[in-house]
Amino acid sequence: MPCPSDPRPVILTGDRPTGPLHLGHYAGSLKSRVALQDSHRQFLLLADTQALTDNADDPGKVRRNILEVALDYLAVGIDPGRTTICLQSGLPALADLTLLYLNFVTVARLERNPTIKDEIQARGFGRDIPAGFLCYPAAQAADITAFRATVVPVGDDQAPLIEQTNEIVRRVNRQAGREILPIATALIPEIGRLPGIDGKAKMSKSLGNAVPLSATPDEIAEAVRRMYTDPNHLRASDPGRVEGNVVFTYLDAFDDDREAVAELKARYRRGGLGDATVKSRLNDVLQALLAPIRERRAALAGDPERVLEVVRDGTRAARSVTQATLDEVRSALGLFVLDPVSGPT
Amino acid sequence: MPCPSDPRPVILTGDRPTGPLHLGHYAGSLKSRVALQDSHRQFLLLADTQALTDNADDPGKVRRNILEVALDYLAVGIDPGRTTICLQSGLPALADLTLLYLNFVTVARLERNPTIKDEIQARGFGRDIPAGFLCYPAAQAADITAFRATVVPVGDDQAPLIEQTNEIVRRVNRQAGREILPIATALIPEIGRLPGIDGKAKMSKSLGNAVPLSATPDEIAEAVRRMYTDPNHLRASDPGRVEGNVVFTYLDAFDDDREAVAELKARYRRGGLGDATVKSRLNDVLQALLAPIRERRAALAGDPERVLEVVRDGTRAARSVTQATLDEVRSALGLFVLDPVSGPT
Repeated sequence: MPCPSDPRPVILTGDRPTGPLHLGHYAGSLKSRVALQDSHRQFLLLADTQALTDNADDPGKVRRNILEVALDYLAVGIDPGRTTICLQSGLPALADLTLLYLNFVTVARLERNPTIKDEIQARGFGRDIPAGFLCYPAAQAADITAFRATVVPVGDDQAPLIEQTNEIVRRVNRQAGREILPIATALIPEIGRLPGIDGKAKMSKSLGNAVPLSATPDEIAEAVRRMYTDPNHLRASDPGRVEGNVVFTYLDAFDDDREAVAELKARYRRGGLGDATVKSRLNDVLQALLAPIRERRAALAGDPERVLEVVRDGTRAARSVTQATLDEVRSALGLFVLDPVSGPT
Repeated sequence: MPCPSDPRPVILTGDRPTGPLHLGHYAGSLKSRVALQDSHRQFLLLADTQALTDNADDPGKVRRNILEVALDYLAVGIDPGRTTICLQSGLPALADLTLLYLNFVTVARLERNPTIKDEIQARGFGRDIPAGFLCYPAAQAADITAFRATVVPVGDDQAPLIEQTNEIVRRVNRQAGREILPIATALIPEIGRLPGIDGKAKMSKSLGNAVPLSATPDEIAEAVRRMYTDPNHLRASDPGRVEGNVVFTYLDAFDDDREAVAELKARYRRGGLGDATVKSRLNDVLQALLAPIRERRAALAGDPERVLEVVRDGTRAARSVTQATLDEVRSALGLFVLDPVSGPT
């Protein structure tokens, strides 16, 4: 249950540690996580167990990126004093809850999940779907409920996963005969997914169209230089399109001076504004945004043990929370709890 | 790894706590478990998590029978000083290993498992197979490998589960680049499955054809009286069939005087031996076998807390063994181990 002395809503979010985070993560989630640190009791989960469900052939990638993502968190301003950063594989209660929930969902239901269907296709699994991958919605239900999170920020393509969680919650509550677990609400970000610098819908390190949070000034400048604009906007005097023009999409996402951006858009549409001018403004904005993040990140990277200690501390704190939920769910279902104080502390 | 100071092979066996144990369990496994306590390092797992995979609608049944099965173990002569009795749900490393192994097996492979196919049919799941049920071979692989068991007694219908375990073991070892986990060998009992007293292939409480280990003298006598013999053996003077005759099957299983049994069989085949005589002998044998078990069981049942303390102690001991394996497997695969001493002790 929510900490009696803490009436704030519980929010659970996190990332699969498969690569350092980039501007897309910043716009889509990191920025709002920093903003929610006081109004919410926030847990950030480094989802290394989930990352393995489609990276079992390269566990080293998952291991290395735990530190990278933790560095990104701290660099953007996540404060371990206000947000609990924890590691999924360090929370055995999550695995126990996952196995429990797998009894409350059928194979057919997992296979029907639209998110899973899309992701299976995207990963080219064909008939060879790892069982862990098919089961990960139950693992996600375990994560969400173990923290008793009621607010779960997800992309709009992931809303079916929250529905799946709530189906399990209702099933468990019905069996327990009381509302032992809360229903979760998906928090869909207002700003849509940030496109890659090439204009593709998704920014991703593997597509080579991402700007990592650790990008150097030169890398930022080069990314802006290569950025997709309006291919038909050949001369500055031509009218140009703003829609689908990545430079303007990024200005919308990162330039706080909305009025100036609106004016630039109008001029660009009319004709008379060259790409170089707009790109120069975006470069200034991104350099200003990323410089302090990069500097904090570099300083923190010099002492990785200190960063891992933050994760270790957060994981220990999360262990009591998640173990307490597991014990309560087991008791409520009439299951045996051999040793209620068994959780590592 | 096997305890350095203990060179004996590790044997893992156990039961799903869904009902008190009966004569079928005694003949098929309990007797040999008692005999193996010195030659092997033996772990007995009360598989409550696995029992839930097809009893999620009645968790109370699983909870209640943990004590019943533990009582049966102690009553037949399992010595907690020589055999570790432990509870599956009290060993979080098993759940963690299960989730890990689910990444190394495909959904299609689980669906092809002959044991699972048969069991899905037997349970009438149809299309509504609980995901936890489909996944239980991976959980079984976790159990076996967590204890580094090399000897696993199973019925012959369960040999495919050991094959599935070894497939996962080979996959993990290949990925780790070394033999981090041992291959397990199925130990198929010499004596076949004991039939029910009605002659049906399986003795089961739910079929009403079982003799529980706690049966009273009257219940034993009544079971023998009702026992299926040769339906064509109408008069003592008629020749009778020994094959499929449950009374003789039970004498083979429980009467230590092989010569006397062989002579009875010969007389029965020739004609001139009535069912009543053979049943009387079997009754004597079963009364002698079950009397001390029943008495020990009744005495132990008077102090359930003491019995649960045995399970609690065994589970604590098993926690260090299984947590160590989890940490070693994770390290060998190149996964992050945040806090190697994290296991509850």
